[in-house]
Amino acid sequence: MSPSKRNPNLFLAQCPSRTILDILAEKWALLILHSLSQSPKRTAELRRHIDGISEKMLIQTLRNLERHGFVSRHAYPEVPPRVDYRLTTLGERLALLVNSLDTWIEENLNEIMAARAAYDAPPPGASEAG
Amino acid sequence: MSPSKRNPNLFLAQCPSRTILDILAEKWALLILHSLSQSPKRTAELRRHIDGISEKMLIQTLRNLERHGFVSRHAYPEVPPRVDYRLTTLGERLALLVNSLDTWIEENLNEIMAARAAYDAPPPGASEAG
Repeated sequence: MSPSKRNPNLFLAQCPSRTILDILAEKWALLILHSLSQSPKRTAELRRHIDGISEKMLIQTLRNLERHGFVSRHAYPEVPPRVDYRLTTLGERLALLVNSLDTWIEENLNEIMAARAAYDAPPPGASEAG
Repeated sequence: MSPSKRNPNLFLAQCPSRTILDILAEKWALLILHSLSQSPKRTAELRRHIDGISEKMLIQTLRNLERHGFVSRHAYPEVPPRVDYRLTTLGERLALLVNSLDTWIEENLNEIMAARAAYDAPPPGASEAG
């Protein structure tokens, strides 16, 4: 049952794959990947598209995605200077999965929210039980 | 361009889908879904399988996954009492996507870590620039 040390295994705390999961299992990372899969964007465009993200989280998450090879930064020699971010080939492959997850959440939202309402509802007869 | 209010849209901070993304975009939630997709488990089994998870995070995440309809809790009338957790049909569908993401991370780990090593490496000539 125990995997070889050479095989990445997310279930092992010390496996580097766990670090990567930690970076990707984060809503801002997923939303940035999804947004950039639609088109390259400048930071101001990302902030407008991803409602609620702070400048700090945007920059920090972009840096982390760039560091791990999912996103690349392009500076154009223009006046005023222009910089945009886009997915690498690796990032594009990852985004296919991320977008599937996002779409799934959106498509199943009603069912999820119904489950939550049922869970949160008082048990039958609770009002009589005083 | 602006979506109908009735269409879930993860890019909107106030959309309930964002709350669900926040719950699922979390490594322990993803690992619990993955683990339960292999077999129903008791909490002690989950703790053994998911290296590094604390009792507190396990219970809290299980509760959240149960609340949103992904996981169900089964108590058996035995002595001593036995309780296990398993995926619902909704959870099983979600786990297919989660497991794809996990597998992708494991399979692409070498490429990701190589990108990171390159990013972290000093720029060429850095040692001479001293």
